Amino acid sequence: MIFKHDFDKNQTPIHEAAFASVREECDSQKVGYYALPSDSDGLIERLEDFKQKNSIFASGKIRDIAIVGIGGSSLGTKGIDSLLKSKATNLRTLHFFENTDPIIISETLSKLTKENTLFIIISKSGTTIETISIFKTIISHFGLEIEGSDKERILIITDQGSALSKFGNHYDLAQFSIPQNVGGRFSVLSAVGIVPLTLAGYDTKALLEGAESFLQRFFERKEDHLLTKASYLYLNSHEKTINVIFAYANELENLCKWYVQLWGESLGKIDSSGKSVGLTPASLIGSVDQHSFLQLLIEGPKDKTVTFLTIEDFETPLVIPNISLKYLEMTDFVNSKNFNTLINLQCDATKESLDMNGIPTDQITFPKRDEANVGTLIMYYELLTSLVGAMMHIHTYDQPGVELGKQILYKKFES
Amino acid sequence: MIFKHDFDKNQTPIHEAAFASVREECDSQKVGYYALPSDSDGLIERLEDFKQKNSIFASGKIRDIAIVGIGGSSLGTKGIDSLLKSKATNLRTLHFFENTDPIIISETLSKLTKENTLFIIISKSGTTIETISIFKTIISHFGLEIEGSDKERILIITDQGSALSKFGNHYDLAQFSIPQNVGGRFSVLSAVGIVPLTLAGYDTKALLEGAESFLQRFFERKEDHLLTKASYLYLNSHEKTINVIFAYANELENLCKWYVQLWGESLGKIDSSGKSVGLTPASLIGSVDQHSFLQLLIEGPKDKTVTFLTIEDFETPLVIPNISLKYLEMTDFVNSKNFNTLINLQCDATKESLDMNGIPTDQITFPKRDEANVGTLIMYYELLTSLVGAMMHIHTYDQPGVELGKQILYKKFES
Repeated sequence: MIFKHDFDKNQTPIHEAAFASVREECDSQKVGYYALPSDSDGLIERLEDFKQKNSIFASGKIRDIAIVGIGGSSLGTKGIDSLLKSKATNLRTLHFFENTDPIIISETLSKLTKENTLFIIISKSGTTIETISIFKTIISHFGLEIEGSDKERILIITDQGSALSKFGNHYDLAQFSIPQNVGGRFSVLSAVGIVPLTLAGYDTKALLEGAESFLQRFFERKEDHLLTKASYLYLNSHEKTINVIFAYANELENLCKWYVQLWGESLGKIDSSGKSVGLTPASLIGSVDQHSFLQLLIEGPKDKTVTFLTIEDFETPLVIPNISLKYLEMTDFVNSKNFNTLINLQCDATKESLDMNGIPTDQITFPKRDEANVGTLIMYYELLTSLVGAMMHIHTYDQPGVELGKQILYKKFES
Repeated sequence: MIFKHDFDKNQTPIHEAAFASVREECDSQKVGYYALPSDSDGLIERLEDFKQKNSIFASGKIRDIAIVGIGGSSLGTKGIDSLLKSKATNLRTLHFFENTDPIIISETLSKLTKENTLFIIISKSGTTIETISIFKTIISHFGLEIEGSDKERILIITDQGSALSKFGNHYDLAQFSIPQNVGGRFSVLSAVGIVPLTLAGYDTKALLEGAESFLQRFFERKEDHLLTKASYLYLNSHEKTINVIFAYANELENLCKWYVQLWGESLGKIDSSGKSVGLTPASLIGSVDQHSFLQLLIEGPKDKTVTFLTIEDFETPLVIPNISLKYLEMTDFVNSKNFNTLINLQCDATKESLDMNGIPTDQITFPKRDEANVGTLIMYYELLTSLVGAMMHIHTYDQPGVELGKQILYKKFES
């Protein structure tokens, strides 16, 4: 990955304190995501075993993998799959049951058959109401015999000791654990992402290596651009309250949704002085949103930073034909160019126009779409989130604000 | 549609000035979208004629309609289609070519055949680089004979007198005009939306009637809740800089993107005193984003308003089975309920939790998904945008900020 920015580098005391804090989170194992790139390697071996011992999987009948999970249990996996699936070959198809919307549940059910599907039920807490309700619907829809012949069609991913884990143990279902010290939104490189992605056919070894090497380089102080970016975002957080990712590729839309959760849920907190703090994430897709949001970026309030995310090589050659249409000759300046060139020059042009208007920008580029680069990007954003959280002196890894809604929901059904 | 809010109603002078300004925009015909619900009726008749006279269409071979357009030329149509398509029967399928991403263009091309497709090329200016480049690609990919046998496979929608209009006239292609006084993001009820939606098989008469009746009621002062909401958003625009739509249905995601363009591009402006002003739109999908963005809404900076958008009756009965899973009994409180009930109670619970935390909310409800209700919602948001724009004393209907990027892009190809 290529990371470019011009943020001020002279914030050494802030850098050092945040770096030390992240170092300590990692070394003390208080925060678990730092260990995932190396620890999750063992999962890949366990999955080789699973593929052979699970008779349905071994028979080659599994063509579809249905993931039942919401938020941190699905966003990262979906983001990686969306970016890479058009490139990969011989993949099993991933399907996502996330929402309680009856239309989307019915549509997703209609795409699947019991015969060809492995169902992966993912919930860190083990009792996520969306996930378990949809799981029950799947059991009923496909007539799954949990106690008998369909045991092998179900795989559980949850915290050790959770109610879902106990359920899995009771029925002797295949089960993988999420480490207790890894929060949902930081869990994509745990079993949460590695199990479904490996079973689908992705090179998860490369994914983990991409993350691990970036992590190592960060701790070796070879990626200090992260520190300067984090301190820029923190020091300007009162004025620049919105951090936009402007991704120039449809395939990046779901990875941006992963970023939105990571950033919003981690940094939107009540700080130690009782004050509401946080930075608001937003995600845009280029060039489409040049025709939607760009006007606001250029002329609207100067409350945003913009990170451009691009793919250098789409590996999909598609040339704009050298056709001149009568009266439309002024569009011929792009003739014979690749769309790949056009979309990336559109990004460059948009970035320059923001720069000229004083909007702070930076750029991250995928040299190409592959597992190693996505792994790097994931670790980059997780570290950036931890650094800004450390600078803000907040609890980066919890989400106390969402509990109230759950309690109110429970009462509504009780009454 | 059901509109509910508790914003302060005592802002009479601001209301009246904005109402008068909108009334004047409408009466003077300076702004054209107010006339679309009644004027576009004529399009539906013209399309009856087109369906009979276009021999390919009349033969019944057209199963797919490809829309080539970006921003205001596609977002509204896509939003309406996404909301209604799972309900409608006997529809032709709409496909959208929007972005310059080579992967998505290739994928969309691969879903179509020349035989069964009508291509609708939409560009208000007539020379949108994305649109014309993709049009050339379609001509080349399908070997379209514009001068001969494939003339009837193409339909043009653009401003009268634009380069694309001249192109269409030259080759005698079917053509529909966008009124000069209707901006792209306000054009969904013009030919831009009405032509493809009618040809696909939607009841566009009901769509226009839903918009027209709301417009009439607004001018008759029977929908003054719009005025109080607009003045609330305007008066609090320095503190509440972000206006979130939290839509509880996957099918509403694209309609929210239409809102994002309408709101962001209209209100993000340099005002008459030279100051950058604007309100930032954001869109969320429930219940998914309860697991992503809700923490930030509840505990983060109090810089947001939230409008909940719900569907009362999904017309898709799907019951959570009355299954009790061992160790997971605490999830049984939703057993035997509809997902329809669950998702809407999740919305209510989230709204209440925001209300209790002092975040300003309101709610808009589709009694059911149909054309008339979407028409009403579209007119509601267009009027709300015009009212807030009038209060801000800005040029609501232009977008000067996006020109610079286009010029830079042109230079990049020249060099």
